[in-house]
Amino acid sequence: VNAGDLRRRYLDYLAVLNERRFDDLVEHVADDLTYNGSPMTRTDYRDLLERDVAAVPDLTYVPGLLVVEGDRVACRLDFDCTPVGTFLGIEAAGRRLRFAEHVFYRYDGPRFVEVRSLIDRDAVRRQGG
Amino acid sequence: VNAGDLRRRYLDYLAVLNERRFDDLVEHVADDLTYNGSPMTRTDYRDLLERDVAAVPDLTYVPGLLVVEGDRVACRLDFDCTPVGTFLGIEAAGRRLRFAEHVFYRYDGPRFVEVRSLIDRDAVRRQGG
Repeated sequence: VNAGDLRRRYLDYLAVLNERRFDDLVEHVADDLTYNGSPMTRTDYRDLLERDVAAVPDLTYVPGLLVVEGDRVACRLDFDCTPVGTFLGIEAAGRRLRFAEHVFYRYDGPRFVEVRSLIDRDAVRRQGG
Repeated sequence: VNAGDLRRRYLDYLAVLNERRFDDLVEHVADDLTYNGSPMTRTDYRDLLERDVAAVPDLTYVPGLLVVEGDRVACRLDFDCTPVGTFLGIEAAGRRLRFAEHVFYRYDGPRFVEVRSLIDRDAVRRQGG
């Protein structure tokens, strides 16, 4: 896949998240991956995502900055949401949260096998309860 | 500048930081820039960097992941250092800290004009005093 194709693939992945089509993760996420250095299966990864959207039903993944090169994607995701429960270990039910995530992916073919993510947890804490 | 050139330019910038050649920042940092959305001058930016290296004399900028496309650079910087004073507002003197920064840059010609950075402050807090 070239950079244009990989960009499109990544935007398709974000659409899967935003449309809650979690069965389609199989097209974007390898069977086994590492998330911030920890090995996990795609099922583990799906569980993480489903927990987030259960706590934050209006969670929307908006790519504010997107940089693609070779088999790598780097994205700044901008979030503007209102959790209904504990999110990122922070009690934030009913609070409007605006924060960013900076995340790197490595693809092996059409699916990513490695994720390195930093979330602006300080911003969430400041705006949370 | 093409992606290969920009990658080289960015690595040159990290060398400037690692060799504490702060006068050479003029080649890499625009006169005016934004840092996490706040306008600042190159002098302000240099002051930030000099404060960091005063608190952390062994601070070394190591690019663990580097993604370059068009006028954009995204980098995961891996740090392994021992502050001698307060760092990131956290009392960490004498503690060995290992943490990452995920940072995006936008270049205008040979110099960057925009920086968006997230630092793993939770890791610093966990390892700090």
